[in-house]
Amino acid sequence: MARRSRTSRARNAVQTGAAPSPFIRRTLPHYDVLDEDQIARLEEQVDWILQEVGIAFRDDPEALELWKREGATVNKDIVRAPSDWIRNLCAKAPREFTQLARNPERSVQIGGMSQVFAPIYGAPFVRDVEGGRRYGDLESFEKLVKLTYMHPNLHHGGFVTCEPCDVPVSKRHLDMLFAHMTLSDKPHLGAITEMSRAQDSVEMAEIVFGADVMAENCVIMGNVNTNSPLLVDRVVTESARVYSTRGQGLIVVPFILSGAMGPVSTAASVAQAMAEAMMVCAYVQLLRPGAPFVLGNFLSSMSLKSGAPTFGMPEPVISNYAIGQLARRAGLPLRCGGSLTASKIEDAQAAYESADSMHSTMLAGANFVLHSAGWLEGGLCTGFEKLIMDAARLGSYQKVLGQGLDTSDEALARDAYDEVEAGGHFLGCAHTMRNYQTAFYEPKLSDSENVESWQEGGSKDMRHRAYERWNQMLNEYEPPGMDEAKNEELAAYVAHRKEEIPDAWY
Amino acid sequence: MARRSRTSRARNAVQTGAAPSPFIRRTLPHYDVLDEDQIARLEEQVDWILQEVGIAFRDDPEALELWKREGATVNKDIVRAPSDWIRNLCAKAPREFTQLARNPERSVQIGGMSQVFAPIYGAPFVRDVEGGRRYGDLESFEKLVKLTYMHPNLHHGGFVTCEPCDVPVSKRHLDMLFAHMTLSDKPHLGAITEMSRAQDSVEMAEIVFGADVMAENCVIMGNVNTNSPLLVDRVVTESARVYSTRGQGLIVVPFILSGAMGPVSTAASVAQAMAEAMMVCAYVQLLRPGAPFVLGNFLSSMSLKSGAPTFGMPEPVISNYAIGQLARRAGLPLRCGGSLTASKIEDAQAAYESADSMHSTMLAGANFVLHSAGWLEGGLCTGFEKLIMDAARLGSYQKVLGQGLDTSDEALARDAYDEVEAGGHFLGCAHTMRNYQTAFYEPKLSDSENVESWQEGGSKDMRHRAYERWNQMLNEYEPPGMDEAKNEELAAYVAHRKEEIPDAWY
Repeated sequence: MARRSRTSRARNAVQTGAAPSPFIRRTLPHYDVLDEDQIARLEEQVDWILQEVGIAFRDDPEALELWKREGATVNKDIVRAPSDWIRNLCAKAPREFTQLARNPERSVQIGGMSQVFAPIYGAPFVRDVEGGRRYGDLESFEKLVKLTYMHPNLHHGGFVTCEPCDVPVSKRHLDMLFAHMTLSDKPHLGAITEMSRAQDSVEMAEIVFGADVMAENCVIMGNVNTNSPLLVDRVVTESARVYSTRGQGLIVVPFILSGAMGPVSTAASVAQAMAEAMMVCAYVQLLRPGAPFVLGNFLSSMSLKSGAPTFGMPEPVISNYAIGQLARRAGLPLRCGGSLTASKIEDAQAAYESADSMHSTMLAGANFVLHSAGWLEGGLCTGFEKLIMDAARLGSYQKVLGQGLDTSDEALARDAYDEVEAGGHFLGCAHTMRNYQTAFYEPKLSDSENVESWQEGGSKDMRHRAYERWNQMLNEYEPPGMDEAKNEELAAYVAHRKEEIPDAWY
Repeated sequence: MARRSRTSRARNAVQTGAAPSPFIRRTLPHYDVLDEDQIARLEEQVDWILQEVGIAFRDDPEALELWKREGATVNKDIVRAPSDWIRNLCAKAPREFTQLARNPERSVQIGGMSQVFAPIYGAPFVRDVEGGRRYGDLESFEKLVKLTYMHPNLHHGGFVTCEPCDVPVSKRHLDMLFAHMTLSDKPHLGAITEMSRAQDSVEMAEIVFGADVMAENCVIMGNVNTNSPLLVDRVVTESARVYSTRGQGLIVVPFILSGAMGPVSTAASVAQAMAEAMMVCAYVQLLRPGAPFVLGNFLSSMSLKSGAPTFGMPEPVISNYAIGQLARRAGLPLRCGGSLTASKIEDAQAAYESADSMHSTMLAGANFVLHSAGWLEGGLCTGFEKLIMDAARLGSYQKVLGQGLDTSDEALARDAYDEVEAGGHFLGCAHTMRNYQTAFYEPKLSDSENVESWQEGGSKDMRHRAYERWNQMLNEYEPPGMDEAKNEELAAYVAHRKEEIPDAWY
């Protein structure tokens, strides 16, 4: 089953130019925008925050106790520590690790020269051409999990592809986990909003992978925000206690709207984000040395008119390049960027902003990219068409990163010049015949025909082509093969927990 | 001066979101994608083409005569020459030069760390929301010249912003030149399609600038394509004789659709383009050592379905990065890229493709970017909305390139951390109050409001906002001041030449 799907993907790659790799192994060099002096100034700022300003660990006496015991200076709930100690702790985190998928062919490598794309996370609303904008529900959620599973350019399922708002908040995570674990065989994240929900995530992952495998491998990760500025709340430390102590991955993301949760300056916001994430990384390494950790960064600019966050703008673009360089120096895997936009619909604004955001995310070397497809309205809304449109573009980034410029003898095509005269053409020459099928990336959703053909086809814009595409994909969906006993065990776990937990809508 | 201009740039940025600099002085480092081995292999290929394969100079015995006299090997019309000689000739071209505008505050620097954005060139069709798709005419042309003049993010007028198809081909250039010279005071290009039209361009420029100024300065440039593969026709050599011998600029652009006008390989196409443009540069330097020259590159990929060119794809993206690096090594100013797309309308496809194309153009360090705004349908159509939408995005690139990441003391904002507590906010702190007005680029055409405000405003997509914007701009248009005598002299020149030249539609 899995094999069949891979073969058809590989065949597809010949037709589409897409690489059927489960993640991107980058060969393109990184882009370093900071000079030595800038790096020194930013790292000095990080050290100053760690040592002088400090970071609060709030509402979690157990976390403060650990910091005290290990020798940090704790003042009320503010933790300060020598920066070289924090950096040494961070160095215990792996530079690169594998997150297993239940289909081993889809396991992903996080860190180093690997880059992994996952869809939008956390939107309460969904939108599509036919149904318009509405609250997310479990039906939409499951469709999004299926589409993510099927799309060759998405490597990872993420988690809350939309909020299933028709299910009580207290039980939602169970349905989401069950959907990811049964409708897809790609790797995914788990819940973090409350300790018991994180616990359910890890327990269900243990059913899928078995205790032995889980003891030795990362099979699930939690993605959690600090409470910027400079505040780590219990959601973070409890997630760390559930995921990290069991050797599972933790992605910690300062979300900074510059001017609100950080100074109104890109450099200061980047340094603050580094300090916050590194402090949590150090905490995680105190809990369990070597636990996989991803340094997150999510920086947005602001509209002067309304104070609303803006995306795809020069400040977050430059912050992607800068944080990429700093994360590589710190030796930590990085999550940043995505196909981000403030647009409400799938128009040119959405695409311009998403492309500039994602182009810089790609070049910055982001190892794990959440929100790489489907994001609208500053993250409030998951667009079905947007998911498919963004994902089509990800194939292009995949080729840029994975292949770079081929300068082999075959690529230099000297034999072609024996056949083709000045002013002639290369259309039928032997070199072209040998190579044309794989020479170009062919995106599924771009229309490159002339205006007459396009009009004959109904003058459809990209949004309408995307609408047709995702509907076609859902019609063709087949669930990945799964061990029946495991499926039943998961279903029983969900049923049992749903009985235990009271309905709650917060 | 530099200091003052930075300050006023910052102030203006508050009002328009745009930097009012006449061009971009890049501070961001370049992005080098090629390693030493790749560079060596590509340059060896260039040398091989120059020395072994050769390049035809067709239908121009005078050009072949010059090559022979100077010592090249000429076989029929194929010119071969030692690559070190060609490279030494190319080294005579200035690494950087100024093109004067008739308003000296709008003169642009071409080469080095400068980057200049110009609109689309050469489309026979135009399109806007109200009028739909139609042939270009002089009225549309003049509107496009006005909009380019008014837009702060376009530094250069280009030339054929659309074809004025209602004017005979034989006379069109006169109306276009007159419009650029009177409706705008930005620098622009001249005609190249026939020697007499190039001559008219230079004569009219002499009226505007005076013979003395013109003798010492570049005041106009021609932009001309080679006839790839490996063919330089009379249009190129005659343009060189008109522009270059008078010390005016020449931009020479191999347009290569990989697989047709070059091998179906990005590396081979890039090397071929380098060889073609360098050979013409050498020819130009034989005509007049030191004549300003811009090495052009225009590479497109191809749809496997139809053979139609595709844009914004991984192959041209990587070619932008590669050619940028090779041009810097050759010490020649570079034209490449643009906001390119195969889409027929101003939809998400147009924006994704344009943004990825332009993001790579920007980072590649392209010194002169034709087609940076307005391009649709693979260049067949100038979109009024597209022009304004693309131009709005250019402001973002301007800030990324011009400012990079500010890591000054003020940017690091240490005083803000004295005021703001963990979990607090920076909205009202002194550092924010000092900096918020200039902190963020604010694009005119992006809507960042919440969905309710956007719906109250009529749920307009970016295309409709662009439509309103360009109409508003034209309503507010005022022509730049101009010496009345010069205006009359230009008008008289045009009238006289129109009498001399017979109407012709080819």
